[in-house]
Amino acid sequence: MSERTTLQLWALTGLPMVREGDALAALIADALARDGLALRDRDVVVVAQKIVSKAEGRTLDLAGVTPSPRAMELAAEVGKDPRHVEAILSESVRVVRARPNLLIMEHRLGFVMANAGVDQSNVAPQDGEQRVLLLPRDPDASAEALRARLQEMSGVRIGVVINDSFGRAWRRGTCGVAIGSAGLPALVDVRGRPDLFGRTLEVSIIGFADEIAAAASLLMGQADEARPVVLVRGLDWSAPATNVHELVRPAAEDLFR
Amino acid sequence: MSERTTLQLWALTGLPMVREGDALAALIADALARDGLALRDRDVVVVAQKIVSKAEGRTLDLAGVTPSPRAMELAAEVGKDPRHVEAILSESVRVVRARPNLLIMEHRLGFVMANAGVDQSNVAPQDGEQRVLLLPRDPDASAEALRARLQEMSGVRIGVVINDSFGRAWRRGTCGVAIGSAGLPALVDVRGRPDLFGRTLEVSIIGFADEIAAAASLLMGQADEARPVVLVRGLDWSAPATNVHELVRPAAEDLFR
Repeated sequence: MSERTTLQLWALTGLPMVREGDALAALIADALARDGLALRDRDVVVVAQKIVSKAEGRTLDLAGVTPSPRAMELAAEVGKDPRHVEAILSESVRVVRARPNLLIMEHRLGFVMANAGVDQSNVAPQDGEQRVLLLPRDPDASAEALRARLQEMSGVRIGVVINDSFGRAWRRGTCGVAIGSAGLPALVDVRGRPDLFGRTLEVSIIGFADEIAAAASLLMGQADEARPVVLVRGLDWSAPATNVHELVRPAAEDLFR
Repeated sequence: MSERTTLQLWALTGLPMVREGDALAALIADALARDGLALRDRDVVVVAQKIVSKAEGRTLDLAGVTPSPRAMELAAEVGKDPRHVEAILSESVRVVRARPNLLIMEHRLGFVMANAGVDQSNVAPQDGEQRVLLLPRDPDASAEALRARLQEMSGVRIGVVINDSFGRAWRRGTCGVAIGSAGLPALVDVRGRPDLFGRTLEVSIIGFADEIAAAASLLMGQADEARPVVLVRGLDWSAPATNVHELVRPAAEDLFR
């Protein structure tokens, strides 16, 4: 039996407001130190999408957006700002469902999510401008880069997960999910392993990165109390590292298009 | 800002194999004591569906199942044992998707899940019989009963979540989800709370019980190392308690039927 019987999570308390160009790894290292935490091998650092996007300058001023005829039509259908819809379309490959006040999109990275992740909340208004925040351009790469830098600074080997909150098809409420990861298996395949009675397990590919993302989300908060970085200690894995790219169900397997 | 900045989870190590009629609360209390853990106010005990079902005697011997014509037809379509399909149908209100080796059902409690939760793994074979395990009859009620008993024994007020692993429409791998809960808000509604810049949050109902279920799942394991009870300490909530029943998206809101 594995020794992995306890797990501890800490939300970092001293992270400053993140701005474009900020070196996230350095901010996180400072906040860890202030909270008296030193990274250890197999620690996983979970970072909210919002601050990764902000550091990468993925804000967009809607004043500079000219909606296409398609965006105007869709905006009228769902009752949203046509410029916001234009930004959503520019991040998407497909409208999955459109209803009043609801746009479920397939993001260009394959994520099926509200508004293709183009978010209006928690973005600082600037001179009355209306700004939105897009997902990082390549969240797996962002996670890899953050991991490399944190490893350089700490000398230990860690995992990184970038999380966001998604709605679900058949359940109310959002749940933390991974949109990027590095240094750990996004999926853990336990097929072929015996169950308690020696029979082969049936359902046996685990969305490991998503479960980590959800766990961290419990500590992050959503509103004015946001704590966008969570350290997870106690996880164990033996499978080779794969990215969140592996978590996205290919179109050919999607029964709910 | 809330003080809720750390979370600790323990998987109980000394739980015996659960059998029909077992008093789960007593088994859990004993295992907690052996692991040196005493329940505190606001602790949440997460229990795997499998042992709740076993304790409640929700096993079914397929030898005693006579498949209906409909079950035989569906079994041929998906390539499953017609008696297993009969058991699945008896637990369901609707076939959501049927494909070779895949049956996504709407369980009578509203859960959209593979095989309506009728599981062949981790059930002890008995004299060569093939037995399957059904979900608890009323998992919210099971959670309430377990909570009441654990509270009586401990004198503290806790939450209980019963979890299972579900596949997702657009993501590969399973993720822990709540099928029953008691003593905590299954959903936390943060609508109307301001974001970091005073603007009202957009996506803001959180599947709290599901995030707890996913976090616990990280420690439970899936195969021969199964640890079906996890204690979660450090969660906080102010919303009134609601059950998992609240987490199920009503048919009228389901865009993916």
